[in-house]
Amino acid sequence: MASQVSLPKGTRDFGPGVVRKRQFISNIIKSVFEKYGFEPLETPAMENIETLTGKYGDEGDKLMFRVLDNGDIYTPLSANWSTIDSSKKLVNALSEKALRYDLTIPFARFVAMNRSDITFPFKRYQIQPVWRADRPQKGRFREFYQCDADVVGSNSLLCEAELMQIYAEVFALLKLNNIELRINNRKILAGLAEWIEAPELLTSLTICIDKLDKIGLDGVKNELLKNNFNTNQIDKVNSFLQIRSKTPAETLLLLKTMFENLEIARQGIDELESTLQYFALLDKRTASVVVDTTLARGLNYYTGIIIEVKALDTQMGSIGGGGRYDNLTGVFGLPNVSGVGISFGLDRIYEVMDELALFPDGLQNAVQALFINFGGESEAKALVELQKLRLAGIAAELYPGNEKLKKQMEYANKKNIPYVLMNGEEEKKSGKFTFKNMLTGEQQLADIEEVITILKQTIA
Amino acid sequence: MASQVSLPKGTRDFGPGVVRKRQFISNIIKSVFEKYGFEPLETPAMENIETLTGKYGDEGDKLMFRVLDNGDIYTPLSANWSTIDSSKKLVNALSEKALRYDLTIPFARFVAMNRSDITFPFKRYQIQPVWRADRPQKGRFREFYQCDADVVGSNSLLCEAELMQIYAEVFALLKLNNIELRINNRKILAGLAEWIEAPELLTSLTICIDKLDKIGLDGVKNELLKNNFNTNQIDKVNSFLQIRSKTPAETLLLLKTMFENLEIARQGIDELESTLQYFALLDKRTASVVVDTTLARGLNYYTGIIIEVKALDTQMGSIGGGGRYDNLTGVFGLPNVSGVGISFGLDRIYEVMDELALFPDGLQNAVQALFINFGGESEAKALVELQKLRLAGIAAELYPGNEKLKKQMEYANKKNIPYVLMNGEEEKKSGKFTFKNMLTGEQQLADIEEVITILKQTIA
Repeated sequence: MASQVSLPKGTRDFGPGVVRKRQFISNIIKSVFEKYGFEPLETPAMENIETLTGKYGDEGDKLMFRVLDNGDIYTPLSANWSTIDSSKKLVNALSEKALRYDLTIPFARFVAMNRSDITFPFKRYQIQPVWRADRPQKGRFREFYQCDADVVGSNSLLCEAELMQIYAEVFALLKLNNIELRINNRKILAGLAEWIEAPELLTSLTICIDKLDKIGLDGVKNELLKNNFNTNQIDKVNSFLQIRSKTPAETLLLLKTMFENLEIARQGIDELESTLQYFALLDKRTASVVVDTTLARGLNYYTGIIIEVKALDTQMGSIGGGGRYDNLTGVFGLPNVSGVGISFGLDRIYEVMDELALFPDGLQNAVQALFINFGGESEAKALVELQKLRLAGIAAELYPGNEKLKKQMEYANKKNIPYVLMNGEEEKKSGKFTFKNMLTGEQQLADIEEVITILKQTIA
Repeated sequence: MASQVSLPKGTRDFGPGVVRKRQFISNIIKSVFEKYGFEPLETPAMENIETLTGKYGDEGDKLMFRVLDNGDIYTPLSANWSTIDSSKKLVNALSEKALRYDLTIPFARFVAMNRSDITFPFKRYQIQPVWRADRPQKGRFREFYQCDADVVGSNSLLCEAELMQIYAEVFALLKLNNIELRINNRKILAGLAEWIEAPELLTSLTICIDKLDKIGLDGVKNELLKNNFNTNQIDKVNSFLQIRSKTPAETLLLLKTMFENLEIARQGIDELESTLQYFALLDKRTASVVVDTTLARGLNYYTGIIIEVKALDTQMGSIGGGGRYDNLTGVFGLPNVSGVGISFGLDRIYEVMDELALFPDGLQNAVQALFINFGGESEAKALVELQKLRLAGIAAELYPGNEKLKKQMEYANKKNIPYVLMNGEEEKKSGKFTFKNMLTGEQQLADIEEVITILKQTIA
């Protein structure tokens, strides 16, 4: 029967070792968010379907996990069966809820619903799982965590600069150095669309450029051809995508020349310039910044500066991204609220850190000491002394049951417990414990106060 | 349009203030779990339906949230439509997954799947949401969090004693005093069933007794009548339920007399005795222990000692509970693994603490200082100085944008920020900031080093 037990496709259990590593990452992200004044929000796993549909494109609607209505769903369906002729109609007849697909739309819904209680600008962070029925593959799961920080209700580009700084600080704390912050502006892409005299094709243009990482420059040109751009237009897009100079300032200069008379592009360039001026005043650790004309970002709702983070020491794609959106809460009845946000790709960061062996030592030894259980009076004494360790704030255990010494030692080893304490027959006379370092094998006779002193030093 | 935005019935958003309070509780629970050697586990929100069905009774199967299959679900359904004649068949044709209903079954599934990698005894904790399509009412939600700790692979009653101690320590740290730990043993209830010569009615007997809190003693008697117990049996059950003496030891003595020749009950009494002997050696804070013959616990899978926690200062029912189960992993192909676990009712604990005003002051002021934004050079200077605060580990913000002073001050107030810093025209000459305590209204001129010193003292 055991072999039948399985997990849903694309989902994972996180055992103790993995949880501790994941928490190491998310605790750092959380602490930085808090230091910058972002406040925590949690929304339910399920949302009403009206909240979610149409927000992620047709593809998104298809990949959403729908939750069946409860109660009698057969009677109403069979009464209307003749009108059902597609999966879409069937789903809508049976389900009025879906699992959260990202954290941004639920956030916008929250802001719209609570507008009168919220103090704007509202800076919130949210670290929760989302669900997508994507085809599972390496690094892509059907349940995965997003870590988002957003500011809504402020147009200041200081927000953009601080969000970039948050990336820099988090990755410095994770010791994930050699990070590149790539920035661009949707307004510059809008300028590009005007420059090639196809402003109505902006969305299609953006989607093509967004594929560059995957399909290369020639691929993008082909894609543009397929989407009815002509050769002249494609040449111009090509020249735009090739723009890259040694410094952000030089790149911006080239862009200014290219888009001299295009108001919208000019505005986008100015915004990048102001953001970089703010950023120059910040403590930005080791992150480098690149103005990247090839950066497009897939999501439809961005309207201003867009950001993506790349870890240069690995082959991994982006490990975070975000941007400004001018009217996300509009669909929920709250227009004219500008926002800007970033997201950390927790699963990808985990993989990069694992690959580069960046998780600190000692993350796995939560328990500092194990009392070996010799039963009877010895067990009772160990139990009493264990209390003193725990009272001193030291995580410790007494093995439950008088099992063979070998088994108990193995337990300590497998659980990465660095010290064991023994009070068997031999130690009885002295009233002390044999205190053994499991790593070095060294051992000494010690009373519990000495043990506490040593353990406190080790932890500190 | 705004009025149409809503949340699914029985679900909640947790805004910043609520999240911080909930985290205060769960962080304490987590830290105690860790101190006692429990390790974190996380399982997916969705489980395959084979894992869940039949584990929670018919009621549980009905209250489960089922997740629709993706892709084309219409074609196969319409091909088999003639065979579908009930909601149950319809659901099973369209859905092979459901949302987690509790944390215990997924844990048992994890243990069975990973048996060869796990070091037993395995002590795990898990704090995650679960979903039930219950009728929402005060204190009952469709999405709520469980906080569980379980030990599997040990028969030692030390586990029971330590889990009781965990309750005592957590509630002491939460300052939720006047806690009563009620314990009983399913083996004593089995003895009772034998004593009234109806061992085959044990489950039905347990379910009736479990209702005592809700329907009172007379209600239980009526319920027993309805379930075909005769008057003689009901009188005996009644005398059993009335047993309660001043101390656990005395209660156990009365039970021993009542069940003199019943082996199974005797065993249950012995287990309680040994557990209490262990417990007597522990640092148990202010919790009191009662052997409560009326305690039955609803869940089917308990086979040994059962535990429930009551906060005596409120009307709230139990705020936690648990017990020993002898064969939970058996259904997943791993027989003969005994386990014991407890659960904290996070939502109920939250409500009790709110009612008794037990959340500590200062939980809501995460940000210590706000720099008022006067634009231009003043903004640039504030931004540079802000870096020094953050480098010193102090959470601080610069208001994004040169808005009216009143608006910025309101922002500080609403966000519970205790200090503001101003460097407007007046302060320009001195190069210092006006540093204002928002609570007392006191203010002084200070340079950033002085500010850091004061803020560090305040935080400590």
